[in-house]
Amino acid sequence: MQSLFRSTLAAVLLSSTLAHAQTRPQLPPPQATDPIALKLMQGFPPPPDKTVRLANVLQYPNARWAFHHMRELGPTAAVWRGAGTPSALPQAARDLDVIRFDDGGGQQVGLTDWQRDTYTDALLVLHRGRIVYERYAAGMQPQQPHALWSLSKSLTGLLAAQLIHEGRIDPSAPVTRYLPEVKDSAWGDATVQQTLDMTTSVQYDEDFARPGSGIFQYLIAGGLLPAPASYSGARSMLAYLPTVAKAGEHGAGFQYKTVDTEVIGWLLQRVTGQRLDELLSQRLWQPLGAGEDGYVWVDGSGAQLASVGVGATARDLSRLGEMLRLQGRFNGREVLAPAVVAELRKGGDVEKFKAAGQTMRAGYSYHDFWWIPHDADGSFEAKGLNGQHVHVNPAAELVVVKLSSHPVPNTAYTHVQDRRAFAAIAAALRETGKAP
Amino acid sequence: MQSLFRSTLAAVLLSSTLAHAQTRPQLPPPQATDPIALKLMQGFPPPPDKTVRLANVLQYPNARWAFHHMRELGPTAAVWRGAGTPSALPQAARDLDVIRFDDGGGQQVGLTDWQRDTYTDALLVLHRGRIVYERYAAGMQPQQPHALWSLSKSLTGLLAAQLIHEGRIDPSAPVTRYLPEVKDSAWGDATVQQTLDMTTSVQYDEDFARPGSGIFQYLIAGGLLPAPASYSGARSMLAYLPTVAKAGEHGAGFQYKTVDTEVIGWLLQRVTGQRLDELLSQRLWQPLGAGEDGYVWVDGSGAQLASVGVGATARDLSRLGEMLRLQGRFNGREVLAPAVVAELRKGGDVEKFKAAGQTMRAGYSYHDFWWIPHDADGSFEAKGLNGQHVHVNPAAELVVVKLSSHPVPNTAYTHVQDRRAFAAIAAALRETGKAP
Repeated sequence: MQSLFRSTLAAVLLSSTLAHAQTRPQLPPPQATDPIALKLMQGFPPPPDKTVRLANVLQYPNARWAFHHMRELGPTAAVWRGAGTPSALPQAARDLDVIRFDDGGGQQVGLTDWQRDTYTDALLVLHRGRIVYERYAAGMQPQQPHALWSLSKSLTGLLAAQLIHEGRIDPSAPVTRYLPEVKDSAWGDATVQQTLDMTTSVQYDEDFARPGSGIFQYLIAGGLLPAPASYSGARSMLAYLPTVAKAGEHGAGFQYKTVDTEVIGWLLQRVTGQRLDELLSQRLWQPLGAGEDGYVWVDGSGAQLASVGVGATARDLSRLGEMLRLQGRFNGREVLAPAVVAELRKGGDVEKFKAAGQTMRAGYSYHDFWWIPHDADGSFEAKGLNGQHVHVNPAAELVVVKLSSHPVPNTAYTHVQDRRAFAAIAAALRETGKAP
Repeated sequence: MQSLFRSTLAAVLLSSTLAHAQTRPQLPPPQATDPIALKLMQGFPPPPDKTVRLANVLQYPNARWAFHHMRELGPTAAVWRGAGTPSALPQAARDLDVIRFDDGGGQQVGLTDWQRDTYTDALLVLHRGRIVYERYAAGMQPQQPHALWSLSKSLTGLLAAQLIHEGRIDPSAPVTRYLPEVKDSAWGDATVQQTLDMTTSVQYDEDFARPGSGIFQYLIAGGLLPAPASYSGARSMLAYLPTVAKAGEHGAGFQYKTVDTEVIGWLLQRVTGQRLDELLSQRLWQPLGAGEDGYVWVDGSGAQLASVGVGATARDLSRLGEMLRLQGRFNGREVLAPAVVAELRKGGDVEKFKAAGQTMRAGYSYHDFWWIPHDADGSFEAKGLNGQHVHVNPAAELVVVKLSSHPVPNTAYTHVQDRRAFAAIAAALRETGKAP
């Protein structure tokens, strides 16, 4: 077990080291990571070196197969799509492959180059609610839910914001009003809103390059990494969270922390008496008219991971994005209150965001687990580890869903190219939108 | 880990011992096993003694919650229902609760008594293709797939029979023509049909009361029971099967063996190059117009368990039963060739069936993993551990699906009552069928 952990850790460290390197060529080139060509998980049984299980998901390029097969790797709860007919997603195909844009390094790249170079598994573009572009790679099928990783946070944030709107949660209340269990932890004197905006100050860091980093304890507690033999910490999420200590003062600055969302996920379930999968199904999947069930990862104690555990199809995420573009209305009904979407788009404190040192995302803020660029188009974004994106651009009447399995944990890895690609798509579609 | 295994084993032994006892009252009475009343898996987190995980599924009454939450307990692959609208299952409700029948012990019981006393989670009755009765208990919802256990074998049998019909598998061929890996095992000189009819002779037994029984090695290899510390055997299904040795001569008599179906499942995947979930989806779920995804349990190596691993909703099983009642046609199309269904209904060798000593099922035979009573109505049945049933009665134009979580592994536990209940339902519906 320990050697497994070590090799997993080695892979993590390697990819993180590479991420910090200046040059791209040290990373496995995308064309060498196609899981079909590599014959990952092919044959009965696949050869041992082509077998992907939970313990070796982080050994790249196993993620390229694993991220659209997560339920085969461990326990998960279904997010039921509901009994109804899926909502309409009309097709209006456009040849966006002709788009060319500067990748930020002075190189002109096309949309297919960008998809390949950012290890894209699914790309779906909605313009005015119609699918204008939809591509899958790495063997992913349209009906397969893809691991959303931290994009899960944004779904949890929507649930929280809606429950706040309904008066069932007070954002200014201390977390302990709902979760007395965390009274001796970092959240012992944090408010709900500080936790939702990640301005809490917690002895926890998300550094994939540091073996003692909080993220590894988190992954072990959540059943996503096998515990090394020497591990004596918590083995379930709800046992782990109360042990996380406070650092400085809450409310001072933004610090990206997966644990904050787990606290909110726990709180939502406590307040409603419903499991996260039920909340996601009743409040998002069913009213959206989702086409497929989603899922939530379940830890060793049966708890659901609100921060990184959700999986969904590209089409269902495009329904979610379109609903947000339309101020909460989709599928002939109000899915979220317009005020919830307005609050989301307002964003958080840009000054506090600077504290995180995310210079690449200068001018952004973070609010209710959404990324707000504060750009001219009023766009807003959900993001997850290894390249998961829901990008909503209201001015361009555009939703882009991009699901990926790139070799670097941090999604900022492709941030510059992604923003340029989203802008190029918006420009191309605006061009179309003009009267003939 | 070892103590976990011991306690699991202890529970198994207890329930088996109780099954052999003469009197029913030693078993937990059904009304004391309701998982909602017991608050199993309720709360965030549920108390430790109310927490159900894979390691304690066999500690009764945890099965009452677990059997309709299996995907939350371990790795599973989705059996996709397809992109289309679910096939119609018209409603024509009948008050079957008025039915009374002799339970075999001289007692008149009603249909609700029988459901309660046999720990039923779902009961669905189709008459002439219409739902006349549908009940759920123990918190199970209509959209939840239930563990089918050995009823999975019957699905695997249908796939095999169809591929034989298409000429892609020769039933008289040695298994080794397709699976050279088993040449030194029990199946080294067995034919495909002997394996499909379980007339192979294998050093393996399905005795839940004997700790060294083959079934425990099977469950460990399949990732369904944690391995005790002392365990040194195979840890994946496809590594385990080639190690199973021959006993006497093949073809002499029927002996119920879960491993035979795993060999066939492996063979189907080898022949088609498709995974079991894909075969089930393309050849059953999609053409049937299933309402929900099913699933297949995945072992530690990623292999899918063809013998016990499938889960499905009661409604989708009723679609399957109705298709078989209609000689393979359902949802406006031929799902299976009529010859496949005819072959199934023909049954196996009644004399060879006697070898198994299943006196309770006198007159039955077993063919292509289906149970054939050879009764006047021409009925045929799929069955699974702890009370899973698809009962098709062509003469009465009847399909009964019963999904349960009774405290005894062997489904024969309630065989007498179940047969009498099925007959009483058939009689009541026949009465309806008469002209007024």
